[in-house]
Amino acid sequence: VNVWVGPVADRTVVEAVTRAGGRVADEPAHAEAIVWLGYDPPELEPHLHDGVTWVQLAQAGVNRWLAAGLIDARRTWTSAAGAFGEVVGERATALLLAGVHRLPEHARSRRWTRHRGGSVAGSRVLVVGTGAIGQAVAHRLRALGSEAVGCNRDGRRVPPFAAVHAITGWPAPLAGVDHVVLAAPSTPQTRKLLDAAALAALPSHAVVVNVARGDLVDTDALVAALTDGALGGAALDVTDPEPLPEGHPLWELPAALVSSHTANPQPERTAHLAAHVGVNVARWVAGQPLHGIIDPARGY
Amino acid sequence: VNVWVGPVADRTVVEAVTRAGGRVADEPAHAEAIVWLGYDPPELEPHLHDGVTWVQLAQAGVNRWLAAGLIDARRTWTSAAGAFGEVVGERATALLLAGVHRLPEHARSRRWTRHRGGSVAGSRVLVVGTGAIGQAVAHRLRALGSEAVGCNRDGRRVPPFAAVHAITGWPAPLAGVDHVVLAAPSTPQTRKLLDAAALAALPSHAVVVNVARGDLVDTDALVAALTDGALGGAALDVTDPEPLPEGHPLWELPAALVSSHTANPQPERTAHLAAHVGVNVARWVAGQPLHGIIDPARGY
Repeated sequence: VNVWVGPVADRTVVEAVTRAGGRVADEPAHAEAIVWLGYDPPELEPHLHDGVTWVQLAQAGVNRWLAAGLIDARRTWTSAAGAFGEVVGERATALLLAGVHRLPEHARSRRWTRHRGGSVAGSRVLVVGTGAIGQAVAHRLRALGSEAVGCNRDGRRVPPFAAVHAITGWPAPLAGVDHVVLAAPSTPQTRKLLDAAALAALPSHAVVVNVARGDLVDTDALVAALTDGALGGAALDVTDPEPLPEGHPLWELPAALVSSHTANPQPERTAHLAAHVGVNVARWVAGQPLHGIIDPARGY
Repeated sequence: VNVWVGPVADRTVVEAVTRAGGRVADEPAHAEAIVWLGYDPPELEPHLHDGVTWVQLAQAGVNRWLAAGLIDARRTWTSAAGAFGEVVGERATALLLAGVHRLPEHARSRRWTRHRGGSVAGSRVLVVGTGAIGQAVAHRLRALGSEAVGCNRDGRRVPPFAAVHAITGWPAPLAGVDHVVLAAPSTPQTRKLLDAAALAALPSHAVVVNVARGDLVDTDALVAALTDGALGGAALDVTDPEPLPEGHPLWELPAALVSSHTANPQPERTAHLAAHVGVNVARWVAGQPLHGIIDPARGY
């Protein structure tokens, strides 16, 4: 397979393609496959000639690509879903622990102040999304003595979740939950999943973590809940709008923490992406189904 | 056994004593055992008549009691060591993750700023102290994909540590270590364990966590290392001096986080202590060795 790595050929990714048995094309004109490391759909579009039968994108969440209308049935499109599960799962765990232990308030304090934190041990955490990130979170929660309950499209069982709810029953999966971690793609089904009604169903000690996409949360409803003390905290790697503008209340609220979409930092990001690309190139060469195939009907 | 719970008889602790088969004495004069919930050695001293054969203290770290010279061989003294392992171990994990993911800097930011965090996964963490807290940390680190190496008095193997070094070889145990978690009692051997030389042996991305006692760290050396960028961060539940005074550089340094000795919050603290007291009363009644016996020669 002739693979073009664009818009700029990252060396780590190029090496992964070569090691996996792919040939690296100098120009997109000669490529059957494109590994696109960019973030801008219009920039990719001119390179999509009829000879390109597979496009590998660099992101796990491809909602902006779907919205741009570029992803169609004329060729195979794959995301990086699954590539960043461990690293983003660790960040989600860090954010949940920080929120429950009230570390944002401690970090902002300039004097000895005994903010009373809670404990993740013994709590029940709803993880929305049971993919690689959600599974990584569930695994870590188990070691922390917390019960992880999952939520996905159809309620299918996924280890290591103790139980998995179908999102179609929303907001029933929130019953009896202490905290919520959002690790699902942004789709019409998940957008504004945590709206005012969902937030009101949570206990006042609940911490909400978002490492998925900002639009899974109704930001105004979240700000209102935090302002009213109806929520224990919010620890967000992603926000809506994003970037979060200066002066936004989420920068000021004591129980809010915003980590500016850094859950998946460079250069580890490229290393994990390259490993994912390598696996997919090898699978393509061997005629096996690719990982992370995007289904526009499903929305990710 | 006649047990006096003082200086004020907490109901949860009294119930634990009764359930374990002890009789709760109304006054210290009639007590063979004292469960002392206070923090002030001179306040306990007048109650220590010759009939008192066992004193149970409420703290895991008893360095101040030893310094006060109250603990002697005339009676059995027990600490609460072991009672708070899970809860303090969780805080230590939260602090380590926060430091590695640069959450203190994110918490203080008022605008979108992409501070580049690291990852605990794949790192090697030295946990000084292999008691209940250290073991709880090691268990959580495993689930995070990190290797926990222990350090205790004699290098004896303690699960789930991959390896355990003897503190007598200090600073050799720091070799090859990414981060350090302090979870050991304050003794002459551990005081100022992290001094300028030890800090200089750590890599510049290292995060130092302290949930033990402030004096295990040379604070001035820590401030110097953080100021010079020679250290990735410091996340401290305990400090020296404590409480940390206003205006201290640790309140201002970007990579420092101080959580004001809240790792073991009420009312969970009392519940864990009561469980520990109940076990020890039952063991005393049954003539079995108590948990947490203080050895003044050992220093905890």
